[in-house]
Amino acid sequence: MPVSLVILAAGQGTRMNSERPKVLHHIAAAPMLHHAMQAGQALSPDRVVVVAGHGAEAVRKAALAFDDNCEVVVQAEQLGTGHAVAQAAPLLAGAAGDTVVLYGDTPFIRAETLEAMLLARARHAVVVLGFEARDPGRYGRLIAEGDALQRIVEYKDATDEERAITLCNSGVICADSATLFDLVAALGNDNAAGEYYLTDIVELARARGLSAGVVTCPEAETMGINTRAQLAEAEAAFQSRARAEALENGVTLTAPDTVFFALDTHIGRDAIIGANVVFGPGVTIESEAEILSFCHLTGCHVSRGASVGPFARLRPGAELAEDVHVGNFVEIKNAILDEGVKVGHLTYLGDADVGEFTNIGAGTVTCNYDGVNKHRTRIGKRAFIGSDTMLVAPVSVGDGAMTGSGSVITQDVPGDAVALGRAKQVNKPGLAPKLFDMYKEIKAKRQKGA
Amino acid sequence: MPVSLVILAAGQGTRMNSERPKVLHHIAAAPMLHHAMQAGQALSPDRVVVVAGHGAEAVRKAALAFDDNCEVVVQAEQLGTGHAVAQAAPLLAGAAGDTVVLYGDTPFIRAETLEAMLLARARHAVVVLGFEARDPGRYGRLIAEGDALQRIVEYKDATDEERAITLCNSGVICADSATLFDLVAALGNDNAAGEYYLTDIVELARARGLSAGVVTCPEAETMGINTRAQLAEAEAAFQSRARAEALENGVTLTAPDTVFFALDTHIGRDAIIGANVVFGPGVTIESEAEILSFCHLTGCHVSRGASVGPFARLRPGAELAEDVHVGNFVEIKNAILDEGVKVGHLTYLGDADVGEFTNIGAGTVTCNYDGVNKHRTRIGKRAFIGSDTMLVAPVSVGDGAMTGSGSVITQDVPGDAVALGRAKQVNKPGLAPKLFDMYKEIKAKRQKGA
Amino acid sequence: MPVSLVILAAGQGTRMNSERPKVLHHIAAAPMLHHAMQAGQALSPDRVVVVAGHGAEAVRKAALAFDDNCEVVVQAEQLGTGHAVAQAAPLLAGAAGDTVVLYGDTPFIRAETLEAMLLARARHAVVVLGFEARDPGRYGRLIAEGDALQRIVEYKDATDEERAITLCNSGVICADSATLFDLVAALGNDNAAGEYYLTDIVELARARGLSAGVVTCPEAETMGINTRAQLAEAEAAFQSRARAEALENGVTLTAPDTVFFALDTHIGRDAIIGANVVFGPGVTIESEAEILSFCHLTGCHVSRGASVGPFARLRPGAELAEDVHVGNFVEIKNAILDEGVKVGHLTYLGDADVGEFTNIGAGTVTCNYDGVNKHRTRIGKRAFIGSDTMLVAPVSVGDGAMTGSGSVITQDVPGDAVALGRAKQVNKPGLAPKLFDMYKEIKAKRQKGA
Repeated sequence: MPVSLVILAAGQGTRMNSERPKVLHHIAAAPMLHHAMQAGQALSPDRVVVVAGHGAEAVRKAALAFDDNCEVVVQAEQLGTGHAVAQAAPLLAGAAGDTVVLYGDTPFIRAETLEAMLLARARHAVVVLGFEARDPGRYGRLIAEGDALQRIVEYKDATDEERAITLCNSGVICADSATLFDLVAALGNDNAAGEYYLTDIVELARARGLSAGVVTCPEAETMGINTRAQLAEAEAAFQSRARAEALENGVTLTAPDTVFFALDTHIGRDAIIGANVVFGPGVTIESEAEILSFCHLTGCHVSRGASVGPFARLRPGAELAEDVHVGNFVEIKNAILDEGVKVGHLTYLGDADVGEFTNIGAGTVTCNYDGVNKHRTRIGKRAFIGSDTMLVAPVSVGDGAMTGSGSVITQDVPGDAVALGRAKQVNKPGLAPKLFDMYKEIKAKRQKGA
Repeated sequence: MPVSLVILAAGQGTRMNSERPKVLHHIAAAPMLHHAMQAGQALSPDRVVVVAGHGAEAVRKAALAFDDNCEVVVQAEQLGTGHAVAQAAPLLAGAAGDTVVLYGDTPFIRAETLEAMLLARARHAVVVLGFEARDPGRYGRLIAEGDALQRIVEYKDATDEERAITLCNSGVICADSATLFDLVAALGNDNAAGEYYLTDIVELARARGLSAGVVTCPEAETMGINTRAQLAEAEAAFQSRARAEALENGVTLTAPDTVFFALDTHIGRDAIIGANVVFGPGVTIESEAEILSFCHLTGCHVSRGASVGPFARLRPGAELAEDVHVGNFVEIKNAILDEGVKVGHLTYLGDADVGEFTNIGAGTVTCNYDGVNKHRTRIGKRAFIGSDTMLVAPVSVGDGAMTGSGSVITQDVPGDAVALGRAKQVNKPGLAPKLFDMYKEIKAKRQKGA
Repeated sequence: MPVSLVILAAGQGTRMNSERPKVLHHIAAAPMLHHAMQAGQALSPDRVVVVAGHGAEAVRKAALAFDDNCEVVVQAEQLGTGHAVAQAAPLLAGAAGDTVVLYGDTPFIRAETLEAMLLARARHAVVVLGFEARDPGRYGRLIAEGDALQRIVEYKDATDEERAITLCNSGVICADSATLFDLVAALGNDNAAGEYYLTDIVELARARGLSAGVVTCPEAETMGINTRAQLAEAEAAFQSRARAEALENGVTLTAPDTVFFALDTHIGRDAIIGANVVFGPGVTIESEAEILSFCHLTGCHVSRGASVGPFARLRPGAELAEDVHVGNFVEIKNAILDEGVKVGHLTYLGDADVGEFTNIGAGTVTCNYDGVNKHRTRIGKRAFIGSDTMLVAPVSVGDGAMTGSGSVITQDVPGDAVALGRAKQVNKPGLAPKLFDMYKEIKAKRQKGA
């Protein structure tokens, strides 16, 4: 049966104290919105509609960055969750199958939970996601018998007996699309806030003789983000789970609490991750690779047996083949390093290809930018790039070639050649003390002047 | 009404196991003493007297570094808190208004608390700061009725009933200056330790028919530091509050627990601070600037839209205008970077001015030190400094000028000129394998030799 | 009385989900096995026998790396702890004195505990190490009266009354060598798993009229490692103790939770260690040295008054004399820096000697590797190495000599000489805008092409 998703992402998030729309604040190096979209993707939805509002343009861009097939509608005024869902009606009211409503600020719903909701649709016209709250506070309460939902009571309208109930409303709802939008169209706003509440469709459904059901999930999945403190808690919760999973999967984390994963980090068994490692989006570390302390990796691939760091930065497009070594104070960007390449120290390789078993000396720089364009550097196999070699791209160094330390390479170097570009050394005997004396005079004059 | 402060800072802090005077151990990148002085400064005191003892010279220096108007007296022998305050009598006994006694090892008293003490002086001759202790242990107990303080009982002299009291003595005291020093002069040392206890002035005051009062504050404010473990706890307490405040103020902290603030760090709304960032003293980060992971910043100013790091170090005098980008393995010291300057990688800029939209290539160094003097480098607007350019200061590069990669710039470069200082590249065909063979022979000989 | 050790290190550690033998997973930068061996070394054992099994070759290598006098026997099949100990019988059954059986995956037993076990041998033929478990769970229970051990009951065989006992079996055992191996030889495997349990020797001993005793230690000492999560907990426990000890010993740790110690880290009183410092094996930091934030140190020695970092890496053989300064983005390997040497920025010193008070400019590299051999660089006293100097080893720079910025030094520089190796600067007026125009044309063509 086809599934559509509606993801509510219009809120300003006043309590975030931010210009940035709430759903674009990051958890695990990705906008919260992406977490919700990713959970929904597990249902292989035919249609994904994101309802944007505050910062709609930025939200649209972020939504499309995650899924370029998604559709974004704008809720110009924020008149409640029911009103928000109604914005998707022109797109989805006629869609076959079910619609699931998710929230851009509720990032941790698991795919299994959404699947359970769809299954429960076999028994109920409308399915609501509930959770047993440790401290139910002011959440709406679900009045249910077994998995049959009788009604949802807002906290302020609840009797003491109802307030004693700990089964609470997450807001996530699933229904046949036609039914959902039909019910949403019937919502009223006759309440203190003058808002249209999605939750009220349960009452409307029951009034029409439709059955409502409840599916429950652990409270942690329904964590919503309203403040930066909660955002930080959510980040911590994500990291805590990601670290435990990595350990479970056979990754060695020397100091798990100091490793920060992104939403999509993949790390192989028996990989070793030192203390203080930060993963941005798009990183894959293969088995038995080692990432030492103080590394920052984004958009890169590190193969088996490779070692990286400490103090290394891999940026998008860094591809390290097996047994590559990237050492300290080294930055690699958009560069392919073949098997066994060594880049030990103080180097920038950007827009480069380096052949197998080539050694890159300390202080080497691929001068890939001329102020206007980026150019590529190609280095062959088993080459030896001397320390402090400037490779002025576009340029190539052939297999087995060498460059002398301190050379500026502006022309291609043939295979097996040695390229030198440096002045001859001249020693001027006895000059140093004279220079120092001169410098001291300058100092004395300065001090007199001051 | 004028206010004087007396800050007791004479203790050795034996339990710190340190040569350093206790009050000079740091919290939030500042000596503990500065925290106490800063709290007191909120009262706009006319006079600030620091009572030094152990390591008096170092304490004097630190006190003056914070407030060059403060006065430092030396308590040659440590004969108790009352004796310590008495050292300030020659300076303050005749001062108009009130005197507040603070402690250099009690860094967290808030300005509001001190202000409340001054207000309470309208009702009482002597005002003592108390706190409700969660675990009163061996603290002195305050016997009070409402805000009227009847007496202070030392733990060892207290009855079981008195020990059940949880209102404890912080030691912070406020009184009319004349009265305070009059009472202090009357203190005896007829006790086991043979010390003069400031606390005893309450009893003396009451005996003279003067009223004593109590003002309370949260226990956390009265935290005193006696061991390095407590110092670490105090640091953690400070950081925890600073992180929560930053979040409250709309700062994005990806991983709050890994960010370390100084006493005076200022960060604007919607600034983003990555994981593992350390702020030393004197840092201002404006709104919407971004500090990536693994940065170390001291004495610098980062403007709106600028981005720094990862792995960047900003040292005192680093001024980054809007939209400046400072990348990895870059150090900036005493340098002004105008709008839109980019310094991407592996660079040292010290004692420099860089004009707007100039691009600094990887591996650039301002050679600012000749072994004796420091010199300044001036780079114009929209210039392009090629990778590995050595700028031998004093030197200037004009607007729109370029330097070639690997050039050593010793003379000024006019605007729009291209400066080159490098040898011509020579390729020696087929030489590399011969060199490698030679190196292998050397290796073989070495191994034979060994 | 002579002592022998048997260390059981044969297990695979299935729950670690790893190719690596369990005892070779690291805690505090050392294999777990080394922790157990170190605890045992406090007894000055005559013989140390490690029983290897899974990954025996790697375990043998690691055991010999810690103690090249130890002996390694291989337990080809894992048939229980009794069977494992039996593998040591050919080596130790005839040895005089006692044998202590330890476990390679139980890293935290203290020397004092083992010594107490040996002392208890005066009263008992067999001594078992027990601990009061907070949550005894499925541990074997020790049925004892005073320090007399009556029997060990496995959880599954225990009555409810026995299960209420909280004194549990650690597995560590000590006995006269002859007796131990005699009892071990008599063990049966008539149990569900068909394994030989070392624990059963207590029953055998008692049946022969021999006395068994129990010595207890805190539960934390008996922590065994079976999963990566437990490994991470053990690492955290080690670090927590090491940090507390350092504070106790008068070390300043700004943020103790972010400092990672190795098993053998030595830090002097009043040394200052910033946030985010990682110590690998073999580090000694003397009193009043300072290690700033974001440093990674292994196998090095930092003398009094020296300062290192932030962002510095010291590798094995880095020897920093008093008042040396190593700054940011600097790597030191196998190099001796005499008193007062300064290496401020962006430098690699490998295989080098640097004389006192020499200043090394930013971007300096010792080019110590020719692709085949490593060579040494020798720099004299009070020399001045200009920024971006390449020192092509083997090479030497004499006392008081200078090198010009950007020079490639391939020949020795005599004392007091100035060595220059750089091209003359040429300014080409007005060329920059023409180049930029050319680059823009290239860009335009590229875009047309794309």
